Order: sequence, then C-alpha cells, then structure tokens
Amino acid sequence: MDFEHCFPIWNKLNPVQKNRLLGSLITCQVNKGTILHNGSSDCSGLFLIQSGQLRAYILSDEGREITVYRLFDRDMCLLSASCMIHSIQFEIIIEAEKDTRLWLIPTETYKSLMEESAAAANYTNELMASRFTDVMWLMEQIMWKSLDKRVAAFLLEESSIEKNSELKITHETIANHLGTHREVITRMLRYFQNEGMVRLSRGTVVLVDKKKLEALQMHKRA
Amino acid sequence: MDFEHCFPIWNKLNPVQKNRLLGSLITCQVNKGTILHNGSSDCSGLFLIQSGQLRAYILSDEGREITVYRLFDRDMCLLSASCMIHSIQFEIIIEAEKDTRLWLIPTETYKSLMEESAAAANYTNELMASRFTDVMWLMEQIMWKSLDKRVAAFLLEESSIEKNSELKITHETIANHLGTHREVITRMLRYFQNEGMVRLSRGTVVLVDKKKLEALQMHKRA
Repeated sequence: MDFEHCFPIWNKLNPVQKNRLLGSLITCQVNKGTILHNGSSDCSGLFLIQSGQLRAYILSDEGREITVYRLFDRDMCLLSASCMIHSIQFEIIIEAEKDTRLWLIPTETYKSLMEESAAAANYTNELMASRFTDVMWLMEQIMWKSLDKRVAAFLLEESSIEKNSELKITHETIANHLGTHREVITRMLRYFQNEGMVRLSRGTVVLVDKKKLEALQMHKRA
Repeated sequence: MDFEHCFPIWNKLNPVQKNRLLGSLITCQVNKGTILHNGSSDCSGLFLIQSGQLRAYILSDEGREITVYRLFDRDMCLLSASCMIHSIQFEIIIEAEKDTRLWLIPTETYKSLMEESAAAANYTNELMASRFTDVMWLMEQIMWKSLDKRVAAFLLEESSIEKNSELKITHETIANHLGTHREVITRMLRYFQNEGMVRLSRGTVVLVDKKKLEALQMHKRA
C-alpha cells in the first residue's frame, strides 16, 4: 500500500512538499490496546491508518469512559496532533482497538504543510468537521435516545464491523463505549435476552434477532 | 467600529482580497428572537458580531432544544456558512438572543478566500476548533454532571452575562437551554429556593446565594 494513494491531497502538493512529507514519514505497527495519544500533553502527529482500528474516547474524573468515534482503514487521525490547532482545548485518548499498522506524519511536518498550502489547511478543515459531526451525532444520541436504543445500536454496529453475529465482548467494555456502568449494561442485556434479541454466555453476546434490535433502535422515544 | 479591526486575519490578506471582502460585506441589524440560520439548507455566510448575542442550538424530533454555544461581541459565527465545508453534516439553528448588529460575509466571498489563502483556511480551522471544544465541554457536562449542577452553572453564567443577580427568564427558557422539560426545571428551582440559593417570582429568578450555587456547581458527583 502506497502512502501516495492513501493521502487524499497528495496531488495538490508541490515536489518539495511531497519530498518533505515522504522523508519524515514513520511507519508503525501497534498492538491492540496500545494508547497512541493521551490528552493534550501528547502531540506525536497525524496517523493515517493502513489497516486496523482506532478508538477515540474521553474519560471522566471518576474514570468512566465514553467512545467518541472510531477510525478504520485509510482514515486519518487529526486529534493526535491537536497541539497544532490552539483552539482545540479538550482531552481525548486514542487507543488501538485492533492490531494496527499506520503511518505517522510528524506534527512539525504537517504544521508546515498547513501553513504554506491552502489545500492542506482546507483538507484539515474537512477532517476536523468530520470528527465534529461524529460528536454532534453522539450528543444527540445521549440527549435524546434512551439507553436501550443506544445499546441496540452499539451491538448492531459492532456486529457490522466484525462481520459476525457472535460478539466477543464483555459488559464492562460495552459500558465503557457508552459511558455507563457495567451493572446497567448487564441488566439491559438480560432484558434483551428475555425478549429473544440476544443470547448471553461468558464474554459473548450473540445477536439472535437483528430485525428486532433494529426495530428497537429505530423506535422513537415516547 | 471598523471591520478591519475586528477581522483577525485582515493583515494577512492582500489588497485584492481586502477589496473583495469589503465590497461584498453586508451590515445587518436583527431583533432579538430572529432566526439567523436554520439547519443545513441555509447558507447565508459568516457573521461577525459588532454588538449583541447569538445562540446556537439543536432540536430533537420532539421539539426539545439544547443550547450548544453562545457568541458575543466580536465573535465570528462559522456554522452559519456550514455548506462551505462538506463534512459538516449536522443541523444547527442560530438565533439572536439579544438585538444584534453584525457584518455578514457572504459564503462565496469567504469560500474563495479560504481556497486561495492558507491564512484564511487556518483561521477557519481555529474557529471550528473553538466550537468543537464548546461541544466537547457540553458533552462532558451532560454525561458526567447531574442536572442540579448544570442548572446552577447556567444561572451563574447567565448572571455573569447580564451583570445582574435578578434574571428575567422563564423556566421554559432554562429548560430549552439545558435540553430538558419545564417541569424538571421548576422542581429543581423550588429545591434551590428551599435551600436558600434563589428566590422565585413570576418570570424572575433572583440569585440570593451565589457562593452556595458555586459550591454546588463545583461539587463532584458521588
């Protein structure tokens, strides 16, 4: 896989910029569970994912997590270089959710590109707008969707990512994605099981009636 | 008040760009309550506030509102030109919360600036990052702060904006800012009154013990 084909504005750069970019590029292989970026103190650079999966989440003072967005093959991770843009004043953590292979564009390299190329700066705008949109979507979910719908939506999304109806996932992990407590998820999954939507066993959730889960997820709040 | 002194990147533009900007600038005076932008169908342009106050909010299917951020004198409103950036895929409503005087930079003018000037594109990045930061802050509040703390924080903020301890505001309006129901706010304000923090009368909330409200706002969730 070539960087040139994965970096969307490659053709808008001049030869000097292309060389500078290729010259500073770092290829990394990280294991599942690696924390790639931890709040604003960290500012390694932009990640371009060759293959794998990253998760961005925030953490409460009490240690509760909530997943803000996920990134997949060919996605670019901007917020790992958040120090580049002064007005980004929030803390986000980025971890590898699967074994991941990625290119790292060092902050200084990208920053100099942005400063001299309107194309690079506008591309950065689009990247940030995509993540902003993810967060607005999430906020609407949190505000206006009850938790049963959010759990149903999460299980369906997870099953679609994994291309599998049998999910190897703990109740704790689901709670961390959705920003709630394990006990709450356990209670909800038992209710789903009683309704014939899932089958539970140790460390596994099997989606046995996706249609019913989809109907639940779509249903408007009373 | 001169546009040149209020537009932060004025000095980074060339004479042609400056003339184009001044030539297309529109000065507007809008009354309190005017809806200036309504979702992605609208794309009038960027607002630069001379004096007044704007509020950006989102709306649920059931008509519930939540305030996402507010803008004051000399603030720039980017999301009223959200069509400029394709990846902004959410609907936001912007209304004048007070009588407001503003400059409108038409979308096409600003778009052409962004395309040719890295300085303009990077400034846009900073604007978007500021609003993104507002939204992340709000999400953390919603996720991890109980409603009593959010109501206390809202009353204190409102009092600081108005420079007045006596707020002319209805329970309905507070509910619309915080994304909840009027009845919930009424109950909460009565509790605050019993605790000696506020005094209620028709259409008015008087903050009688700001220290106590501040203490409540800061207090961590158990």
